[in-house]
Amino acid sequence: MAVRAAVAGASGYAGGELLRLLLTHPEVEIGALTGNTNAGQRLGALQPHLLPLADRVLEPTAPEVLAGHDVVFLALPHGQSAAVAEQLGDEVLVIDMGADFRLKDAADWEAFYGSPHAGTWPYGLPELPGGRAALEGSKRVAVPGCYPTAVSLALFPAYAAGLAEAEAVVVAASGTSGAGKSPKPHLLGSEVMGSMSPYGVGGGHRHTPEMIQNLSAAAGERVTVSFTPTLAPMPRGILATCSAKAKPGVTAESVRAAYEKAYADEPFVRLLPEGQWPATASVYGSNAVQVQAAHDTAAGRIVVISAIDNLTKGTAGGAVQSMNIALGLDETTGLSTIGVAP
Amino acid sequence: MAVRAAVAGASGYAGGELLRLLLTHPEVEIGALTGNTNAGQRLGALQPHLLPLADRVLEPTAPEVLAGHDVVFLALPHGQSAAVAEQLGDEVLVIDMGADFRLKDAADWEAFYGSPHAGTWPYGLPELPGGRAALEGSKRVAVPGCYPTAVSLALFPAYAAGLAEAEAVVVAASGTSGAGKSPKPHLLGSEVMGSMSPYGVGGGHRHTPEMIQNLSAAAGERVTVSFTPTLAPMPRGILATCSAKAKPGVTAESVRAAYEKAYADEPFVRLLPEGQWPATASVYGSNAVQVQAAHDTAAGRIVVISAIDNLTKGTAGGAVQSMNIALGLDETTGLSTIGVAP
Amino acid sequence: MAVRAAVAGASGYAGGELLRLLLTHPEVEIGALTGNTNAGQRLGALQPHLLPLADRVLEPTAPEVLAGHDVVFLALPHGQSAAVAEQLGDEVLVIDMGADFRLKDAADWEAFYGSPHAGTWPYGLPELPGGRAALEGSKRVAVPGCYPTAVSLALFPAYAAGLAEAEAVVVAASGTSGAGKSPKPHLLGSEVMGSMSPYGVGGGHRHTPEMIQNLSAAAGERVTVSFTPTLAPMPRGILATCSAKAKPGVTAESVRAAYEKAYADEPFVRLLPEGQWPATASVYGSNAVQVQAAHDTAAGRIVVISAIDNLTKGTAGGAVQSMNIALGLDETTGLSTIGVAP
Amino acid sequence: MAVRAAVAGASGYAGGELLRLLLTHPEVEIGALTGNTNAGQRLGALQPHLLPLADRVLEPTAPEVLAGHDVVFLALPHGQSAAVAEQLGDEVLVIDMGADFRLKDAADWEAFYGSPHAGTWPYGLPELPGGRAALEGSKRVAVPGCYPTAVSLALFPAYAAGLAEAEAVVVAASGTSGAGKSPKPHLLGSEVMGSMSPYGVGGGHRHTPEMIQNLSAAAGERVTVSFTPTLAPMPRGILATCSAKAKPGVTAESVRAAYEKAYADEPFVRLLPEGQWPATASVYGSNAVQVQAAHDTAAGRIVVISAIDNLTKGTAGGAVQSMNIALGLDETTGLSTIGVAP
Repeated sequence: MAVRAAVAGASGYAGGELLRLLLTHPEVEIGALTGNTNAGQRLGALQPHLLPLADRVLEPTAPEVLAGHDVVFLALPHGQSAAVAEQLGDEVLVIDMGADFRLKDAADWEAFYGSPHAGTWPYGLPELPGGRAALEGSKRVAVPGCYPTAVSLALFPAYAAGLAEAEAVVVAASGTSGAGKSPKPHLLGSEVMGSMSPYGVGGGHRHTPEMIQNLSAAAGERVTVSFTPTLAPMPRGILATCSAKAKPGVTAESVRAAYEKAYADEPFVRLLPEGQWPATASVYGSNAVQVQAAHDTAAGRIVVISAIDNLTKGTAGGAVQSMNIALGLDETTGLSTIGVAP
Repeated sequence: MAVRAAVAGASGYAGGELLRLLLTHPEVEIGALTGNTNAGQRLGALQPHLLPLADRVLEPTAPEVLAGHDVVFLALPHGQSAAVAEQLGDEVLVIDMGADFRLKDAADWEAFYGSPHAGTWPYGLPELPGGRAALEGSKRVAVPGCYPTAVSLALFPAYAAGLAEAEAVVVAASGTSGAGKSPKPHLLGSEVMGSMSPYGVGGGHRHTPEMIQNLSAAAGERVTVSFTPTLAPMPRGILATCSAKAKPGVTAESVRAAYEKAYADEPFVRLLPEGQWPATASVYGSNAVQVQAAHDTAAGRIVVISAIDNLTKGTAGGAVQSMNIALGLDETTGLSTIGVAP
Repeated sequence: MAVRAAVAGASGYAGGELLRLLLTHPEVEIGALTGNTNAGQRLGALQPHLLPLADRVLEPTAPEVLAGHDVVFLALPHGQSAAVAEQLGDEVLVIDMGADFRLKDAADWEAFYGSPHAGTWPYGLPELPGGRAALEGSKRVAVPGCYPTAVSLALFPAYAAGLAEAEAVVVAASGTSGAGKSPKPHLLGSEVMGSMSPYGVGGGHRHTPEMIQNLSAAAGERVTVSFTPTLAPMPRGILATCSAKAKPGVTAESVRAAYEKAYADEPFVRLLPEGQWPATASVYGSNAVQVQAAHDTAAGRIVVISAIDNLTKGTAGGAVQSMNIALGLDETTGLSTIGVAP
Repeated sequence: MAVRAAVAGASGYAGGELLRLLLTHPEVEIGALTGNTNAGQRLGALQPHLLPLADRVLEPTAPEVLAGHDVVFLALPHGQSAAVAEQLGDEVLVIDMGADFRLKDAADWEAFYGSPHAGTWPYGLPELPGGRAALEGSKRVAVPGCYPTAVSLALFPAYAAGLAEAEAVVVAASGTSGAGKSPKPHLLGSEVMGSMSPYGVGGGHRHTPEMIQNLSAAAGERVTVSFTPTLAPMPRGILATCSAKAKPGVTAESVRAAYEKAYADEPFVRLLPEGQWPATASVYGSNAVQVQAAHDTAAGRIVVISAIDNLTKGTAGGAVQSMNIALGLDETTGLSTIGVAP
């Protein structure tokens, strides 16, 4: 019997990517699709790449529209998920692709988002230690941010294995879809093509406390993260370059061993053969994470680089993966490690 | 029982795209993968986006390697397919993704390719009049060129309906993957990013006689084609802008009706709603063709625009579609009309 | 003594490009810079590439601000130039980079722009027959549209030499800056990168009557133009692919001769050596026009391709060139045929 | 009296950019242009954006060709400069745009380049402490690497002011022109568009010892650098994200003050207003360096970001700037801080 899924916020990039994946998910039947300003429009005008859904019409994001589904995905602006989730009842699986329920620390939430903390839901990154157990049977899932997905998967094995000092430095490049579909001057094609630019420098990006939360849990101590996101001239993809000082006694072999152990059985994370490095093009449209680690002996640092598709593993694919676990389906159902390249 | 498929030329862009599709084709088991200069290398080093095949090793393109398969796809340089096909025997389905067997007219072949004509195989564009019948049960398929796919599907309905004069003008923009993976200075990223440039101007492009062959067949008279291909700063996609003088009495309605009739039941060709125009991003990675037509009354011309992914519908997806028909499978098996966007 | 120049509309792409050129123009002193919604802002925040002007502050577009200059450039939305120009007085050189004064035929204006015709000013394309004479000493200049610049320079020599039939077919690809700096969803980097898409198909683009005006004047008869603009994934540049049926007796030699004659003494238009074709990258940031022509004997058409930078020769560079002529300066002052590549 | 300049290696990207700048340098007359494999070809076929030089023909890189010039620029593959320089004599100004003479430490050279050390020439980064004095009147200049230019200018003020611990972490994104014009598969447009990828990770990039050399000199102690270069989908530009732990007592104000002091009088380096961050698009084609610094108090790090055009300030513009100083010309002659954007 099919899982009936609704998508609240189907006109944006996260919603569109989710629909792309759900269309080929063998256990899912796509139910209501909602939008706010776009309610009443054909999906074909908003998501012209989703031809099988072209004639579907967006409905308003209202309780009576979202009722009667087994799963409701929320791809809403920050701060709107709590109210919608409350109306859906406890027996419905609600998967929030926004930030509202990711952070455990209310003070962190308030400092970075400037609004009261709505709560904490099971965190949808099954590759983290204990990650799967937290999701099995859960009726609520907070999908991680795209940068925290890339960064946590790059660095947690080093911290879990006790190889790295508790001060991480991360510089990540993201495709423009991470900034959403609302038109703003600095996101115009004319501005982004041919340009690299940073933003949220110096600790201000909202994904920083989420990274700290994940890495600190792995390390068993407070890890600081110096995080610099940059906007790259490509529609999709995150390349995260992460490093930390190596603890005494660390060798290239111990680094490699930690990552081999962490990812030996992970269906979506691939530690590349030595000498091969990730590229975002290789994971375009796929749920795969490519990872490679090096030990820079001259600088005394472990350097780990990961590549994900910010919309797939970083958002909608991660959401589907968590849904699969929460519903007791095979975790990989409807997901792929095959990229679209070149 | 699975169809066992070999791919000769698995290290290039056409071969890689074919493997991407075959990996999710429910009836196909991927057999031998061959290369020439790359024989002996891991596929993971050559096609890093195909993670499930990363540990496969390329073999040489030799008869004993290709033997024992139900289907053999040839993604070889022009002129090499005939010799390989001969060795495979008549009971094997051979699908040539090169140009060798596309043209019916030996003089055309020799004029444009400068070598003896190898013959003519059933042409793998099922949407053309009589196209499917020619492929059913066939053991040989010539996959169309990428430009002729886009242009023939844009214009044949107008010619089949007798709406257009026999002189077509086509300007098409292609992504760089159409030029292949052999490194040449003008294909460097530094050269193509930020630049549009034409090539083969004035009638010299080898796909020209193939377009003429298809459109003339639809029109029942010799159609000339002024074809200008241009290289666009994107990896994939063809946008073909095609026009011809409208015959007397043609109206916007008669144009629309001709296209509605031609494509009402086609699974991969979508005539867009009036007012919406194709974009290559919408068909990225999909086998879909988006088409729209207009009647420019001031200029007296029918203008038709089509968008395809040159590697999917334009090459590897078209090959799989023809394979499905030739083997008696559902034509859409393993193929999709869902693009990867943005 | 320096020419004192004001720029009304200094925050957009046309205004920014104009300032880039004026900054190195040896005869010009940059005076008032105005904006509407951006008045009061530092130019450094709006045009961060113009470091020497970073601390200049935009003023409102008001008569008292624009008074006291020798030249006033108008980079305003369509329909706003007439009112501003009237207030400036007849002795000031006013150069309108908008569309308001380009068309001679009021009916054309009203059909394509939907508002009353404001009038016709001398047309700033000196390379056209009689073009320079119309500008010398003039106090009003209408800068041509970017597409009409590229298309008129591609085709007028063929028409002036009587080589081409009076039905032109034009497909042009433009960089996104041609669509301006106002944020709209379809102009987001996420949408345009990796995509080619058409717009204004079927005769609806506002630049169509301007092309017809120019080519008809050269031909001495009414020329129709089937014009299809497409949006290309690059910030700048227009590649115009133009063709028309060759008149009887035309040869490759007669075509070449016509272009050699037309452009032998033009400082900014370069007919490329035979076999070399234009690319937009080659004219990036320059006032140059690269042109090449071919005779497609099989299709019976003359095919001419031109490349310009839509912001330089297509807008701001063309404006400076006309200013130089109007003021009696050397036409090439402050302008260059050197592109920024790769 | 004009300075007569020859360019050895005029067909590559560095040589092309140098010619673009020399063409508008008021004191320079362009003399011999040489190439190796390209000798005998028209420059118009190799550098189609340099229209004024289109008819110049490349000569072989031979002593008799390079003789008789006041300045000879060497844009040669690594290891070839010493032999050419020796033949030119001591009275000619020789400016090496390659790496051969940048490093002071012969062991560093041999470790990273694998060949005998050719020597050390005055280093062409005048903004460094003592940088100008070393160049005045010199007859030899080693132009810095593109990454070391961006990184040294980002970090030396923090080290010179004693604000930063001696362990720097640098992640830099470069446009593809930094990788040169030799065609290699991973530099194809199809590969780089839409992709970010790292290379030389873990301390292996040859520019690392050059950064260490510069920063250690500024700090007065050995500084280690963890350097990760990444290839970005754009033709030009470097965005360098650099950080180091703040020493005790450092504040946002002391960081800002150090950079204001370092760059108050520098003609090409611009410390942006607080809150504004560099973007590579803003320095496209210009010799400007945009810099911004932040103090991340939570992570305890100083984060500094710089943007340059790798071909201009990072190579050819830096070479011209050093030439100006060496010859006693105004340092800014023929150079600009105006970018080409969007």
